[in-house]
Amino acid sequence: MDESCTADSHPTDRHESILRRQFTTVVATAATVTALAPATAGTAAATPVLPRQAPAPTRSTADPSVCLAVARALLVVDDDDRPLVPGYRQILDSGLPRPRTGGAKKILVVGAGPAGLVAAWLLKRAGHQVTVLEANGNRVGGRIKTFRTGGHEGAAQPFTDPRQYAEAGAMRIPGSHPLVMSLIDRLGVKRRRFHLVDVDGAGKPVNHAWIHVNGVRMRRSDYAKAPRRINQSFGVPRKYWDTPSSAILRAVLDPVRDEFSTAGPDGRRVDKPMPERVRGWARVIQRYGDWSMYRFLTEQAGFDERTIDLVGTLENLTSRLPLSFLHSFVSQSLISPDTEFWELVGGTATLPDALLREVHDVVRLDRRATHIEYWAPDRHGSDDTSHVRAAGPHVWIDTVSEGRDGTVVREQFTGDLAIVTVPFSGLRQVQISPLMSYGKRRAVTELHYDSATKVLLEFSRRWWEFTEADWKRELEAVRPGLYEDYRKGRAPADGSLLGAHPSVPSGHISAAQRAHHAANRWATRDQPEAAHVIGGGSLSDNSNRFMFHPSHPVPGSEGGVLLASYSWADDASRWDSLDEEARYPHALRGLQQVYGQRVEVFYTGAGRTQSWLRDPYAYGEASVLLPGQHTELLAAIRAPEGPLHFAGDHTSVKPSWIEGAVESGIRAALEVHLA
Amino acid sequence: MDESCTADSHPTDRHESILRRQFTTVVATAATVTALAPATAGTAAATPVLPRQAPAPTRSTADPSVCLAVARALLVVDDDDRPLVPGYRQILDSGLPRPRTGGAKKILVVGAGPAGLVAAWLLKRAGHQVTVLEANGNRVGGRIKTFRTGGHEGAAQPFTDPRQYAEAGAMRIPGSHPLVMSLIDRLGVKRRRFHLVDVDGAGKPVNHAWIHVNGVRMRRSDYAKAPRRINQSFGVPRKYWDTPSSAILRAVLDPVRDEFSTAGPDGRRVDKPMPERVRGWARVIQRYGDWSMYRFLTEQAGFDERTIDLVGTLENLTSRLPLSFLHSFVSQSLISPDTEFWELVGGTATLPDALLREVHDVVRLDRRATHIEYWAPDRHGSDDTSHVRAAGPHVWIDTVSEGRDGTVVREQFTGDLAIVTVPFSGLRQVQISPLMSYGKRRAVTELHYDSATKVLLEFSRRWWEFTEADWKRELEAVRPGLYEDYRKGRAPADGSLLGAHPSVPSGHISAAQRAHHAANRWATRDQPEAAHVIGGGSLSDNSNRFMFHPSHPVPGSEGGVLLASYSWADDASRWDSLDEEARYPHALRGLQQVYGQRVEVFYTGAGRTQSWLRDPYAYGEASVLLPGQHTELLAAIRAPEGPLHFAGDHTSVKPSWIEGAVESGIRAALEVHLA
Repeated sequence: MDESCTADSHPTDRHESILRRQFTTVVATAATVTALAPATAGTAAATPVLPRQAPAPTRSTADPSVCLAVARALLVVDDDDRPLVPGYRQILDSGLPRPRTGGAKKILVVGAGPAGLVAAWLLKRAGHQVTVLEANGNRVGGRIKTFRTGGHEGAAQPFTDPRQYAEAGAMRIPGSHPLVMSLIDRLGVKRRRFHLVDVDGAGKPVNHAWIHVNGVRMRRSDYAKAPRRINQSFGVPRKYWDTPSSAILRAVLDPVRDEFSTAGPDGRRVDKPMPERVRGWARVIQRYGDWSMYRFLTEQAGFDERTIDLVGTLENLTSRLPLSFLHSFVSQSLISPDTEFWELVGGTATLPDALLREVHDVVRLDRRATHIEYWAPDRHGSDDTSHVRAAGPHVWIDTVSEGRDGTVVREQFTGDLAIVTVPFSGLRQVQISPLMSYGKRRAVTELHYDSATKVLLEFSRRWWEFTEADWKRELEAVRPGLYEDYRKGRAPADGSLLGAHPSVPSGHISAAQRAHHAANRWATRDQPEAAHVIGGGSLSDNSNRFMFHPSHPVPGSEGGVLLASYSWADDASRWDSLDEEARYPHALRGLQQVYGQRVEVFYTGAGRTQSWLRDPYAYGEASVLLPGQHTELLAAIRAPEGPLHFAGDHTSVKPSWIEGAVESGIRAALEVHLA
Repeated sequence: MDESCTADSHPTDRHESILRRQFTTVVATAATVTALAPATAGTAAATPVLPRQAPAPTRSTADPSVCLAVARALLVVDDDDRPLVPGYRQILDSGLPRPRTGGAKKILVVGAGPAGLVAAWLLKRAGHQVTVLEANGNRVGGRIKTFRTGGHEGAAQPFTDPRQYAEAGAMRIPGSHPLVMSLIDRLGVKRRRFHLVDVDGAGKPVNHAWIHVNGVRMRRSDYAKAPRRINQSFGVPRKYWDTPSSAILRAVLDPVRDEFSTAGPDGRRVDKPMPERVRGWARVIQRYGDWSMYRFLTEQAGFDERTIDLVGTLENLTSRLPLSFLHSFVSQSLISPDTEFWELVGGTATLPDALLREVHDVVRLDRRATHIEYWAPDRHGSDDTSHVRAAGPHVWIDTVSEGRDGTVVREQFTGDLAIVTVPFSGLRQVQISPLMSYGKRRAVTELHYDSATKVLLEFSRRWWEFTEADWKRELEAVRPGLYEDYRKGRAPADGSLLGAHPSVPSGHISAAQRAHHAANRWATRDQPEAAHVIGGGSLSDNSNRFMFHPSHPVPGSEGGVLLASYSWADDASRWDSLDEEARYPHALRGLQQVYGQRVEVFYTGAGRTQSWLRDPYAYGEASVLLPGQHTELLAAIRAPEGPLHFAGDHTSVKPSWIEGAVESGIRAALEVHLA
């Protein structure tokens, strides 16, 4: 063995020189750009917000050909930069191409998340003999999980109103994700707009939800016009006083985006045509692939600590500062006010519902894969003769079933091929023999999985949609004078008003909840004006961080389930340490800090929470890569190991998105179909 | 407000130039050093292992005076570089100095971990009126937690042998930690050596435990002599084939250490005298304070991916690569085979036991602090008149008690001053009003807390101490021929041999455990020779990662509790996703991969596990800082907020160590005593 064993380290000189030269040129040009900061009252002139550019280091360790491969995976194009999506959509519509080789194969699919379900559906339609093994005993869908009556919790209804439902996982689908949109429409699943930005009664975006940081509360639309009060509360330098955080961030990200897209006259960015777009992304990956977002903001953007605090808090970067720049950069580009989002009527789980209808006869629930053996002639030791044969099954998968009565049943399944969709964080605990390739084993060990945690609270009225007049009417219905008592901060804070509104069904709020609530009460009880928004959400620097209002009412119900806290990474860990029951009083108090104490009268006492990192089926929210992992791990993540193929959002460059799962399911189905 | 509000950004020009010039000189010199790699069979000559040095960037954002302050905190010296430890030891011996001001104060201490207990003990001895509020209902000690009969679990015994005990948390105390050593001796707690490296029967270190990576198994002592087989299994470049991972790492860390210490002729490092040592650390902090370990290993050390894999796996850096270089660097310097470690007879909990004896009358268990209000004249809004007074209590702390019957009791405590020792990850959920300073709030929000997880398994015999003859005797006692059956890999793998040895008490292994075990069985059943070690531990690239053998037998017991898995950060997260019960079969299987299948016959079926990030009292293993957080957050972490003072290991530069907690407890006790 000599140094050539480090197979990834042969730079293609031609590529390298192209990439480096072009990048340097573009960055140098970008440094002269000034931001599109709106001129605001209190500012004599628009201030250029592009900060001091640190000298761009020239070092880059990643092989340019690897960067190109990552860029192609991100853009879903083939080695000749031709888009794969049209063909994939064709497959969703019309099925897999006729197989090259004749016979149907026996295929095991491990995991019934969207990747596994899509792969199974396609392979079943193509005539293969498919078995899907799912560890969950009561549902499919993976990180698509809807709390709903008659759902995975069976007879138990999650909220006091049996019609109410809410998302534990995926809740918004970008219209820019073509495969999942095709799948939804192909399966006849109903969709409607998800309002990332709150709207008025006519559906027009108004952006009236709250920003609540450093003790300051301001509507998002006011902040966009006059950010000084909030920006000063972070102590940012004068040059940033009058620029909204999104513009401060955009100004430092735009030079990077200039590699693969151009800004139109309206400020919207237009992607460059395909060969250039791939090269541009490859340059970005080479330049920043081993950078954290923290490093980018300090060294490239030249931000001071306070500006990082401001942008991190408002643009949701803080908790992921040590993670990959590329991940947050791609997310930032996707989750913007410009993106059109969709939700599914009845809950996101209606998508796996529809897929399950197609494959229900081949899905085996309550089968946790624990042990995988596969036949790979070059990998078995000479003294292992148990599987020395070319015919017959090439994959053996052991499962355990915990059953309903506590009896553990072990079962073995066999196949010619398998598609493993288990997140690598879970696969780490699955025995696989013989040893997989070095690269795959490292990826299974090292791929970073992140936390994401939600706390959902049910209210008997959608008070966030109220006007001040609505508040007055409803609070007076609790008891005369209560409206003013809340406004003056003199309503009792002992928990006695929890669920006090007549619309709240009795019997759900215990004395213990009231005591917890009182002990966790919020001291400074100022009452802001009514939020009066539909959809969208607020943000705070309290532990709740991000709050989302439902975009649409549940028919027949005046109530609603609020996503009272949605957080990631370190922000989510703060919740993950708490037992589930302990989270609800904290989440309610966080809401009250933003919206005022009075919201308590509509609290039904019912909530649900989901910690994805603590989930023994998901093993994390998603693979959010560390600096360097895109170029170090991606190829190995996707590569087959003998008869084992790999799918799941973590095998795409869109982790955490259904699109990535669907894309990977189609890819893997094609792989085994044509194998 | 102008730009001067960023108070930390006034470089002291004189300091800065001193620091930068000196650092550059030393690094340039260090680049000529070659490593002390032992010449081994198969190498013609000792190979220099110092890798290519990446050009050292000159950028540094941290204010030199801040770096000096962090260095002083790390070394526990005052502003004139005089060591504080002698005075602190004096305080542990003789009590706090006589107060400057006359009267006794009413002091609330939040949290009964070692920091809170030490502070309470000192303040009580000094005549103050102290109350300690502890959230746990059944124990003190914080992250010192021993699973033991009659311990916090009350009547329940954690293992089948009631004499057995094991550590959920702190288990080894470095002899180089002067304050905790003083405290232990002052309180008469019994200590004995903890063997980080395994020893023979005579107590001589032999280093015979296993390294098990990439399917290769080798004794640590053999690896130290001939590392090629394992190093090649990672595919490292030829220049590293014959250098042990510790030497590869040492060669790149030593130039950094040269800033504050010098290598003696025996290779051991000697600290420079104090003023120079402080300056040296300050230079390191300035140079690398905002670097991750990953960045150091790639950019400064010039390591390729494979070398990072090797060093990361064997030297336990992989899971913390994205975290602060400084943290891992300090740990690496501390946890070395040269360090002398101690353990406490009867369990580490005997230390909090002893402290509790001193303060038991003032500790209130089952009081979770939920709400803190404090009087700070400059921070109350003009319309808040509730606390406008200078006399009387200045701190009000609400607590909840969950009680034993489910009744939640709310209680308020008052004091003149308070010492808050709650980890910031937990403090994030505590309401504190008025708003604390900007810096403190950011620290509470952003301070990174890490995961650490242990899985402990009980065995009826200390089989790791066995010779091969012991194995033969004991396995034949199960059934004749079993010894050979295991050696040939033909013993049944269906779980039927779990706990099969006559010494295992019956009734603890369920059919479910056997089924889980069979489903998680390990396929390649090669049997290595007997480990035959006392103390020390093995390492693997499987999910168990680090295994520790008890250093001493429990008197009267032939069995022992093995720390089957000890892992941190991402390695720990892989376990944290699993329910507790699901961990034991995985942990046993991981042990079997390293030591062979046959260990199963001694498994009693009893285990305990601790996920510190999932613990609702600890909220994480410890504050393991992110790049940049030492200089950005440390000053704010420790600063008082009006009458609130802060202690806990997170306020020291020794997070996760009892030493840091004790040091902070003494500091905070002094603060409030002299306030």
